[in-house]
Amino acid sequence: MAAAGKVYLVGAGPGDPELVTVKAQRLIRECDALVYDYLAAPELLEWTKPSCEQHYVGKRAGFHALPQPEIEKLLVTLAQQGKSVVRLKGGDPFIFGRGGEEALTLKEAGILYEVVPAVTAALGCAAYTGVPLTHRDYASSVTFLSGHERPDKDEPLINWAAHAATDATLVLYMAMGRLPLLAAHLIDGGRTPETPVMVVQWGTTAKQRSVSGTLENIAHRVYEAGIGAPAVVIVGPVAALGDSLAWFDPSI
Amino acid sequence: MAAAGKVYLVGAGPGDPELVTVKAQRLIRECDALVYDYLAAPELLEWTKPSCEQHYVGKRAGFHALPQPEIEKLLVTLAQQGKSVVRLKGGDPFIFGRGGEEALTLKEAGILYEVVPAVTAALGCAAYTGVPLTHRDYASSVTFLSGHERPDKDEPLINWAAHAATDATLVLYMAMGRLPLLAAHLIDGGRTPETPVMVVQWGTTAKQRSVSGTLENIAHRVYEAGIGAPAVVIVGPVAALGDSLAWFDPSI
Repeated sequence: MAAAGKVYLVGAGPGDPELVTVKAQRLIRECDALVYDYLAAPELLEWTKPSCEQHYVGKRAGFHALPQPEIEKLLVTLAQQGKSVVRLKGGDPFIFGRGGEEALTLKEAGILYEVVPAVTAALGCAAYTGVPLTHRDYASSVTFLSGHERPDKDEPLINWAAHAATDATLVLYMAMGRLPLLAAHLIDGGRTPETPVMVVQWGTTAKQRSVSGTLENIAHRVYEAGIGAPAVVIVGPVAALGDSLAWFDPSI
Repeated sequence: MAAAGKVYLVGAGPGDPELVTVKAQRLIRECDALVYDYLAAPELLEWTKPSCEQHYVGKRAGFHALPQPEIEKLLVTLAQQGKSVVRLKGGDPFIFGRGGEEALTLKEAGILYEVVPAVTAALGCAAYTGVPLTHRDYASSVTFLSGHERPDKDEPLINWAAHAATDATLVLYMAMGRLPLLAAHLIDGGRTPETPVMVVQWGTTAKQRSVSGTLENIAHRVYEAGIGAPAVVIVGPVAALGDSLAWFDPSI
C-alpha cells in the first residue's frame, strides 16, 4: 500500500480567480487529485497538472451531485492511495461549508490534512461594491449568517431578534429564497425599515450585479431586477456607502 | 502635471505571506509606490520592483507613525504624481481598518482606486487552529467584533449583552488589553462561564501560539501563557474543536 497522502481543504475564494491565495494556487498546481464543488471560477481547474485527476462533487442551490458522506469517503480513499488531494470549496472552508465535518472525518481516519483559508464571499462582495463593513462611524462589528437553515431542524436556528438588537453589519449568505421573510424578521426585531441594504449577485466576477434599497423595499427591488442566487445581502448603514464608493465595473 | 495614478487598497492577509491573494501579489510587484502599515509578513516588501518607493506609516498597538489624515493625504499626493500606489493594510481593508475612510478620501479627491479583499485574521487563525467557525452543529453565524473601541466615545459602542444573546461564534479583534472585562461582559449577557474559548497569537505565522480555555478562565490562562497582541479570541462551542482538529505546527 502506498504511503498515505494528504488532503488540503482549500478555499476557492469569492469568484474572481485572482482572489485565491498564493498558497491555494500552488496547491492546485501541485496536487494529484482535485475534488471540487460547483465553482464560480472554472479557470482554477486549468491550473492543475495534466496527470491530476478531477472529481466534480457538485453542490449548487441545494443540489448535491454526491452526498456529503460520499465526498468524505472519496477524500479518505484518495489520500489512502498516496495522493496529494486538494478539496476545493467555494469561499472559505470554515464559513458555511462542511469544512469542519470534512476535517473531523479526516482526523478520525488518521489522514493528514491542512486547511487553507480564503476570502469569503462577504469580504469579496463588500470590497468590490465599496461597502466598508466595519466603518467605525457606523458599525463596530459584522456578522455573517446563513439564510439557508438545516432542513432537519424544526425550529429556526437563528435568533433573528437577537441579531437585530446588535449594531452589527449583517451579511446574509444563501438568503435569496427567503429574503422577504428574513427582512421582516429583522424589522420585527427592531431594525428600522429604512435600514440600507445592498444585494450583490456573482460578486467579484464579470457577471457582478448589485441592487441597493432598504429592509422595507429590498425584496421588491431584487425581484424587479431579476437578481437571484448566488448572492449575499449586506444589511446596515454601511450598505449606503456602496452607492458612492463603488469602483468595480464588471463590464470592463 | 502627470496623469493621475491609481490607489489600490490591498489587504495583506493574516500573516503567512502565502495567504495573500494572487491579485495582491501582482499589484505589489507592479506598483510605483507602496504605503504600508506594520506588517506581520515583511517578506511582502521584497516583492516590489527596485524603483518602487516605500512609505512606512506605522500603526501597531495604538502607536501611529503617521496620523490617519496624513496617510490619506500621502495617498492622494502619490496618485496625483501619476503613480500606481499600493496601500497595504494588515488583514482585509474593510475589517477594522480605516479602509472605508481612505476610500472616501480618494473618492472625494477624484482619485481612481480599487479595493482588494483579503483573508481576515479571524479566518486565517480559525483555519490554522482547526476551528470551524460555523460548524452547523454548533453555530449558524459568526460575528467579528473589535475589542478596541474608539477612544473618543464615552459610551461603549458594542452592546455585549445583545451579542451574548445570539448563538454566533464570536471572534474578538484587538481584545487582549481588555480580555477579563470582555469575558465578564459576555457571561453577564448570558453566555455560560464554560463556553469554550481559543486565543491565537501571531496566527498563521511561524510564531503562532494558541491557548484554549473557557470564558471563566481564559484571561488567567492567557496571562499564564504570556500571550499578548497581536491575537484574536474565538468564543463559542466550535472553539473546543480546535484542540482535536489542530494541524499546523508553527515549528516546522
